[in-house]
Amino acid sequence: MRVLGIDPGIAMVGFGVIESDRHNQSMISCGVITTPAGLSLSNRLHLIYEDVRELISTFNPDAMAVEEIFFNTNTTTGISVAHGRGVILLAGYKAGVPIFEYTPLQVKQAVVGYGLAEKNQVIDMVRRMLRLKAPLKPDDAADALAIALCHARSSTSLLNLKGGNGACSTI
Amino acid sequence: MRVLGIDPGIAMVGFGVIESDRHNQSMISCGVITTPAGLSLSNRLHLIYEDVRELISTFNPDAMAVEEIFFNTNTTTGISVAHGRGVILLAGYKAGVPIFEYTPLQVKQAVVGYGLAEKNQVIDMVRRMLRLKAPLKPDDAADALAIALCHARSSTSLLNLKGGNGACSTI
Repeated sequence: MRVLGIDPGIAMVGFGVIESDRHNQSMISCGVITTPAGLSLSNRLHLIYEDVRELISTFNPDAMAVEEIFFNTNTTTGISVAHGRGVILLAGYKAGVPIFEYTPLQVKQAVVGYGLAEKNQVIDMVRRMLRLKAPLKPDDAADALAIALCHARSSTSLLNLKGGNGACSTI
Repeated sequence: MRVLGIDPGIAMVGFGVIESDRHNQSMISCGVITTPAGLSLSNRLHLIYEDVRELISTFNPDAMAVEEIFFNTNTTTGISVAHGRGVILLAGYKAGVPIFEYTPLQVKQAVVGYGLAEKNQVIDMVRRMLRLKAPLKPDDAADALAIALCHARSSTSLLNLKGGNGACSTI
């Protein structure tokens, strides 16, 4: 099963693609979609929408896992990220990819085994689970891989495994 | 100048279309897009996106005015509405319609002349400005007309006036 994990945002959207069977997960690709702050909100949303469409077309995932918004931190940021999350969900729906949503707590629980784990613990665990030697950068790409791993570990329909090794990229 | 005003939401999106010249504004159409609560969020976003695309294609507006989210009320609702607002802005951008954003304060100021006006004062003023005899229902449609009027009154590029009379409809 191939999973596309997405960490939503406006300035930066993290993505991570993994292959998973019942016992192993491998990274295919990871990176970030960035949008310039000087553009209008509608223009930035359009860039995100088109890039997510392109990711789906390139990697043909069996499932898309998108993190839910944790809105206890900063409401203004949460509102902004939710705009981006709206067009990300739309891109997945229009491409016919089954969409799954996970809270940050669920992601940490699935990857580290502890819902209140620190960010660096999550990133370190993602690296170990995917047997990656190089450090994972930026954090948003690592977070997206964590979300994909959360879905792979939560899902019962784990099918085929294809190997792969991709460097993180910026769209 | 023809203006499409939008009051964003997930369960209900208000829309109002007006024609405006320097001195007069007339209603062309108004109504609401509704999405069933039982559908997935991505499915509801898709319905909103497609309906806004259809509104643009039907009424061919010169401008689209979209209300900003007032997030001091309920954060959970604000996050939900922002998802819908994201796909509404995307629909406008993809159709090449210039998009303008107004805060609730700006809308009330432009329509009633007082930023802290009550909801029923806004609705009553919309009815008078558009010379409508029947009461405006539902409130979200009236709000969308207020947003369109706010843009018409704020804009300096007021062009041609075409008359019209449309009943509020539900998509």
